[in-house]
Amino acid sequence: MLGTVLYGPRDVRFEERDIPKIVKPTDAIIRLSATCICGSDLWPYRGIQAVAQPTPMGHEYCGIVEEVGREVRNIKPSQFVVGSFAISDNTCVICRDGYQSSCLQREFMTSAQASLVRVPLADGTLVATRDLPPKELIPSLLATSDVLGTGWFAADAANVKPGSTVVVVGDGAVGLLGVLSAKQMGAERIIAMSRHESRQKLAREFGATDIVTERGDEGVARIKELNNGVGADSVLECVGTQESMMQAIKSTRPGGYMSYVGVPHGVSLDGEQLFFAEVHLHGGPAPVRRYLPELIKLVLNEKINPGKVFDLTLPLDHVAEGYRAMDERRAIKTLLRP
Amino acid sequence: MLGTVLYGPRDVRFEERDIPKIVKPTDAIIRLSATCICGSDLWPYRGIQAVAQPTPMGHEYCGIVEEVGREVRNIKPSQFVVGSFAISDNTCVICRDGYQSSCLQREFMTSAQASLVRVPLADGTLVATRDLPPKELIPSLLATSDVLGTGWFAADAANVKPGSTVVVVGDGAVGLLGVLSAKQMGAERIIAMSRHESRQKLAREFGATDIVTERGDEGVARIKELNNGVGADSVLECVGTQESMMQAIKSTRPGGYMSYVGVPHGVSLDGEQLFFAEVHLHGGPAPVRRYLPELIKLVLNEKINPGKVFDLTLPLDHVAEGYRAMDERRAIKTLLRP
Repeated sequence: MLGTVLYGPRDVRFEERDIPKIVKPTDAIIRLSATCICGSDLWPYRGIQAVAQPTPMGHEYCGIVEEVGREVRNIKPSQFVVGSFAISDNTCVICRDGYQSSCLQREFMTSAQASLVRVPLADGTLVATRDLPPKELIPSLLATSDVLGTGWFAADAANVKPGSTVVVVGDGAVGLLGVLSAKQMGAERIIAMSRHESRQKLAREFGATDIVTERGDEGVARIKELNNGVGADSVLECVGTQESMMQAIKSTRPGGYMSYVGVPHGVSLDGEQLFFAEVHLHGGPAPVRRYLPELIKLVLNEKINPGKVFDLTLPLDHVAEGYRAMDERRAIKTLLRP
Repeated sequence: MLGTVLYGPRDVRFEERDIPKIVKPTDAIIRLSATCICGSDLWPYRGIQAVAQPTPMGHEYCGIVEEVGREVRNIKPSQFVVGSFAISDNTCVICRDGYQSSCLQREFMTSAQASLVRVPLADGTLVATRDLPPKELIPSLLATSDVLGTGWFAADAANVKPGSTVVVVGDGAVGLLGVLSAKQMGAERIIAMSRHESRQKLAREFGATDIVTERGDEGVARIKELNNGVGADSVLECVGTQESMMQAIKSTRPGGYMSYVGVPHGVSLDGEQLFFAEVHLHGGPAPVRRYLPELIKLVLNEKINPGKVFDLTLPLDHVAEGYRAMDERRAIKTLLRP
């Protein structure tokens, strides 16, 4: 079987790998219908996050169950399934509280940019659809696996409610789907911070009411200008840098809510500054599993079309070009067809 | 009039000061029934926070209204009033949302360790009782002005609910009243982290079910041992140092809530560590004004006795000894009688 392996900065290879097998009786093997490249894959691709050894890549996946271990009860061969990037038992005290991404047995999916993948804790991690979904919905179903689930968590963690004023920092696929999520949750005003015309357009299509192109303190000033001199009710931080985190905190009104959903890189928050900002802060790896049943339903009922973030589709063996296109910001997000 | 002025590290003086006068038509002048020394006063007293010039001290107060400016509507001379340490108009968009401590017109009270004090924005800041309260309730009413209001906010911001498991980091007066607040909010288990016998005793009296004497990672391990291997639902950070903040974050379960209510000193939070902790974080200067009506009522109905944190009472002109006693941890909190 061929799969994607990152050897070092900008050195991604599609090469022969072992065929995944059932290792534990709670595993399942999935034949992927589609997979994709995540914004977070660009951190190691760009060398900002070191890779010590050749590293299999990919954590977003959906497909057909090939085989299940003998202790798997709810997932059956031939079903179509979507899973979260975080592996979870969905039964521990943390999972039961809705934080499956911090499950006591958590693992992170890797190696999903391939034709077959092993999913541990299949019963807890995977959600099956009743029927095989129509082909044209595959991109949107794939999106629920991480990028939509993460944007949804961003909006939820930022307490977006009907009538809220929302700011989204970051115009990557997660930020754009944060806009879509805020719209679904009833936000009245959604301000997307973006400088890229194609992304602004998609943000508007997903529900953004305003676009702010300024960044940093100028961006903060513009947000307050649009909002009677105070910050927004809810701010979604979808980048993960020091600059974007501070921009998000300062764009939130005292008593408001700020979420952050991308792994922060080189971020350090000053305690005193945070104290006087007086915002609610919540973030972490998105508990996608909590939202999957609802998000899959919204996709199958064609209420939302998150698959639009995939503006480049390539055959899986062209994965290296997919990384290049995202690195150079020629593509928002690349879908890969095995 | 005599008042308290800090000249530098451990140099606190009680000396002649101008008699406070109405400056703006929204001001009131209060003759203090009691005032006190705050744990936060110890930061500049100890020289950890520099004072550039002689600085009047004190921000906790209750007393009888002497005089009001011509635009004051709700507060009248001869009324007994309690005010928050944060001055607020109680009408701006931030106040209306319950964050009076970040009011658009916010000022911080200073100079309340005196016999008379000027309170700006009197209508927004002060709450009057219907009758003059009995003398024995003065300490508890004074406590609502900051130390109880802050402990209450700590519990509220940490989402304490009936049945919650709560950890309180810090056995100062705020931490102890955080215990009392958590108990009032229905917490089932309240774990106080304390090494001091007299404070442990008061914590138990206020509702603590368990005492943990270990600190740092050992303290975190002990919390998890008491709680089936995971952190607590709600953790109240009532100290403000790097060590105590990290101890609090690590003591919170993923998806749980951590609050911090003392101005952090030298605290820096690592973004990635915070991300994977996956806790809710909220804190800042406590919006005491939001809680004052409820807290005053609880005191007047003798449902709570927060005044017990005052284990030293001195005449106001002995204020310097009050600072010394708290600095040396001989006293939890000093009440001063003008």
